[in-house]
Amino acid sequence: MVPESKTNNVKVIIVGGVAGGASCAARLRRLDENAEILMVERGPYVSYANCGLPYHVGGAIEKESSLLVATEQTFREQFAIDVRTRCEVVGISAAKRTVELRNHATGEVTTEHYDKLVLSPGAAPIRPPLPGIDLPGIFSVRTVPDAREIREWLDRDTVDRSGMHSYTGYQTVMPAKRAVVIGGGFIGLEMVENLVHRGLEVTLIEKLNQVMPPLDPEMARFVERYLIKHGVHLELNDGVAGFEQSPDGLLEVLTSSGKRHPADIVILAIGVRPETALAKMAGIEIGQRGGIRVDEHMRTSDPDIFAVGDAVEVKDYVTGQWSLVALAGPANRQGRIAADVITGRDSRFRGTQGTSICQIFEAAIAQTGTTEKFLTQLGETDFEKIYIYPNSHAGYYPGAKYLAIKVIFRKSDGRLLGAQVLGEDGVAKRIDAFAMAIQMGCTIYDLEEAELSYAPPFGSAKDPVNFAGMVAADILRGDMPISHWGSEDGRFLLDVRNPQELAVESVPGAVNIPLPQLRGRLGELPRDREILVICRSAQRAYYATRILLQNGFNAQCLSGGMLSRSVLLEG
Amino acid sequence: MVPESKTNNVKVIIVGGVAGGASCAARLRRLDENAEILMVERGPYVSYANCGLPYHVGGAIEKESSLLVATEQTFREQFAIDVRTRCEVVGISAAKRTVELRNHATGEVTTEHYDKLVLSPGAAPIRPPLPGIDLPGIFSVRTVPDAREIREWLDRDTVDRSGMHSYTGYQTVMPAKRAVVIGGGFIGLEMVENLVHRGLEVTLIEKLNQVMPPLDPEMARFVERYLIKHGVHLELNDGVAGFEQSPDGLLEVLTSSGKRHPADIVILAIGVRPETALAKMAGIEIGQRGGIRVDEHMRTSDPDIFAVGDAVEVKDYVTGQWSLVALAGPANRQGRIAADVITGRDSRFRGTQGTSICQIFEAAIAQTGTTEKFLTQLGETDFEKIYIYPNSHAGYYPGAKYLAIKVIFRKSDGRLLGAQVLGEDGVAKRIDAFAMAIQMGCTIYDLEEAELSYAPPFGSAKDPVNFAGMVAADILRGDMPISHWGSEDGRFLLDVRNPQELAVESVPGAVNIPLPQLRGRLGELPRDREILVICRSAQRAYYATRILLQNGFNAQCLSGGMLSRSVLLEG
Repeated sequence: MVPESKTNNVKVIIVGGVAGGASCAARLRRLDENAEILMVERGPYVSYANCGLPYHVGGAIEKESSLLVATEQTFREQFAIDVRTRCEVVGISAAKRTVELRNHATGEVTTEHYDKLVLSPGAAPIRPPLPGIDLPGIFSVRTVPDAREIREWLDRDTVDRSGMHSYTGYQTVMPAKRAVVIGGGFIGLEMVENLVHRGLEVTLIEKLNQVMPPLDPEMARFVERYLIKHGVHLELNDGVAGFEQSPDGLLEVLTSSGKRHPADIVILAIGVRPETALAKMAGIEIGQRGGIRVDEHMRTSDPDIFAVGDAVEVKDYVTGQWSLVALAGPANRQGRIAADVITGRDSRFRGTQGTSICQIFEAAIAQTGTTEKFLTQLGETDFEKIYIYPNSHAGYYPGAKYLAIKVIFRKSDGRLLGAQVLGEDGVAKRIDAFAMAIQMGCTIYDLEEAELSYAPPFGSAKDPVNFAGMVAADILRGDMPISHWGSEDGRFLLDVRNPQELAVESVPGAVNIPLPQLRGRLGELPRDREILVICRSAQRAYYATRILLQNGFNAQCLSGGMLSRSVLLEG
Repeated sequence: MVPESKTNNVKVIIVGGVAGGASCAARLRRLDENAEILMVERGPYVSYANCGLPYHVGGAIEKESSLLVATEQTFREQFAIDVRTRCEVVGISAAKRTVELRNHATGEVTTEHYDKLVLSPGAAPIRPPLPGIDLPGIFSVRTVPDAREIREWLDRDTVDRSGMHSYTGYQTVMPAKRAVVIGGGFIGLEMVENLVHRGLEVTLIEKLNQVMPPLDPEMARFVERYLIKHGVHLELNDGVAGFEQSPDGLLEVLTSSGKRHPADIVILAIGVRPETALAKMAGIEIGQRGGIRVDEHMRTSDPDIFAVGDAVEVKDYVTGQWSLVALAGPANRQGRIAADVITGRDSRFRGTQGTSICQIFEAAIAQTGTTEKFLTQLGETDFEKIYIYPNSHAGYYPGAKYLAIKVIFRKSDGRLLGAQVLGEDGVAKRIDAFAMAIQMGCTIYDLEEAELSYAPPFGSAKDPVNFAGMVAADILRGDMPISHWGSEDGRFLLDVRNPQELAVESVPGAVNIPLPQLRGRLGELPRDREILVICRSAQRAYYATRILLQNGFNAQCLSGGMLSRSVLLEG
């Protein structure tokens, strides 16, 4: 046990009382009973669960009070922290080490001195200056009052404006209200789910060619199909041009392609932008991605000013690039680190690997590490990718679902670079194993040997994580050369599935030799051409590739098989 | 891509066609088209899902055929492997490199030469030579025929022998049949669940002072309470002395303590013993734990004989001790490694960390790495442990359940040594993160910084794994000295909970100062005594300990708080 050191009654002002700010304040008090800590928050609440807002709108979280994780009272009583809500910083003088605070209730402006200032202003939803953007019924989802206003708006009006009625037996079913969600990222998808859950008919508009930007586009295809299957109207590759409102109050969303989408409510979930007004006021450095620049101690260019959370740029742990990552986990850890450093410790933030998960209906979409598209953007070529579709748990135990997994790894040394996992069961189990693996610098050879939990309801003796490692290692060891869809031209296509499988879906031009017949029919295959081997998921194709290679053929396995084909080729 | 090398038509005989043996055979063929591979299996099936047998008995897996993961035909057609079922090795000559095979169907005995022999005989259920052990109605659970016989036995007899009837409204409810399960390990617990699921009244008899030996006893207490809550009659610390059968066929289980438990069916799940008869026949070395001794290449003391699976001793990855671990994952990996080595590769088995998970009713019980009891047995003292009880996911999102987590780590360097996780939600997610962490040599400081998946339905911004790391790091950094229950004597007990919490359960002799009042009432505390601080889960006790330490008191936090107390003290 180290003796507790007497501290110098340092005065710390923390701007922003959610996630990073709140974590910083509580940690600071635990480390230093003598510090004077003032935490100011512009909004009415501190430490609220903004990740829960979509579920409050949807009704899964019924009470607004459930969203208040820790109250002002908690901070005052347990941590002896001076908390001021509805209090905004309107001026910073880094030279004098003072901030000007405006009390929104009284309008009073006071000046407070600080020894250390911690900025945790977060990121603001982007509201582009489009025609009609300020019409009533267009909402962002950032704060508890936002969620309250959305709920009130949805509850407000039960009048059926459509003039249509449908009859199911003796029950009159009112047509669902229409919602348009703009932006297919985390918040957008969570809002889609929750609005559908409330019975609304939902259109999702996304300017990019994919939903869920942390995924590679071909993995996002699975999500898009899933949304459509659940009745969501999906409009990709179309931006919003403006909003109009009819005299009876119905909104219309106008898109760049000229479409008009009627809406009783519009949710803006285009993305967020770091709140850097305070940082600019303080004259501290802003990074290349538009966030506050900090070092690994969370210190800004002014040694007495720290910044944490969604407003700062962080190093991508895998690629080393600066990035903007709006995630609660890193924000909390950064808050702790700033507190550590202020009290004289040498804590460092190791960067973020962007681990994230999103529930959408019965499925989960998860990602950790980097993506193929980001590596490509960086000009990287020293990587390979695999697609696998294993069962979430033993196939013979009820409830097993297919997972769709993409794993990206370095070709030169096998280092794991990124993983994307989608499915209706067991997603969190796998993404966390991959996340821990990336943190510890795992190779795909380590994944092969991972000893993960298995019993029939939870996994398989070869867990999907092991399986990913084995497939990747087969490639790097040269046991299984692979190709990806799109490389078929000029190659001999060999489909080793059974004839009845081909009846459902087949590849034009492919020759069918079912795997059990392959050894006896090698004479039908060309020795002067590259043979691409196809099956459903690539497992039998792997077996076939092994047979062919050992018999002197030039064979490659088509990664992900038919299961990858549809999303990769047909989009 | 490496060129495929021509192999020497090596002949490999694999004894045992499940898990390790089947994995070895398939891998061998993939690596070597020219090998002659003979796989013999004593039973009627190869590659069946023995982990699924309890669920087949319970009915969750309805069809017996679902248990047959890969058939003889698969091995013949896809892998060109000569498979012989109902075929037993009755002699081995290591000198001549031959085995004698008896065909159970014909009685014929043949001699086969091998270049390499792979033993994968598994482990056999222990059947102690007790009086009455061979009475009808006493079953082990190892093979598909075992499960079939149990099902037939349960279906066989619908006659109510008890003479009692109970009436619920107009429905006559027949009393449940009575089952006695002997042994509270994985198979025992899975059988308990499945027999309860079938409507039986179940008594579980366990000779040790705890169920689930891979757990430390105080963690097993949670499981025992959970079993009792689900109507299971639990008899700990009582061995089976024998069995009797009344003239009408009802069994009675007699215990060492003199009790008699009537039973319509008895399941023996006392444990397993490595099948070493073949190894002894071959004259190869048996290890100190009674399993076949192999090196990291899975090679036995005879260079041409390999052994894999439940019959071999493996190195405990954390402690380096030889151990017997009957788990499917390691067995499969060992099979692959033996195949690799036989075909000239340098693959090595890294040992096992004993990762396991078991479903029991709505809960899961999981463990990875080593336990406190094993470390203590080894005389180790360089370790510390923590107990935490975090929510499985954000408390404000519906369905969050408490997890009970014990983490063991090295005091000198923070290395993670073991984790035990129990609960009704999110157990697999956490044990796999801990498992990957242990594999990669993580410290608890790495756990603090782990970036795991978080969204309200799946976790918390500070995941339980992070939380474990933070609590452990607080201890090692000297920020939070801790004690464990049982160390109260002579110490001043300070309970910082609210008075209404004390009304439910309190600690005799403890002084209550609620945390919010602590700073103002420090004068009531002794400066000359060690103060043990108590709250519900130890979170507020940690805050209080920080306040006390910084004010010059000698304070320690009671790890796990009241939630640990009941299991640690009251058993």
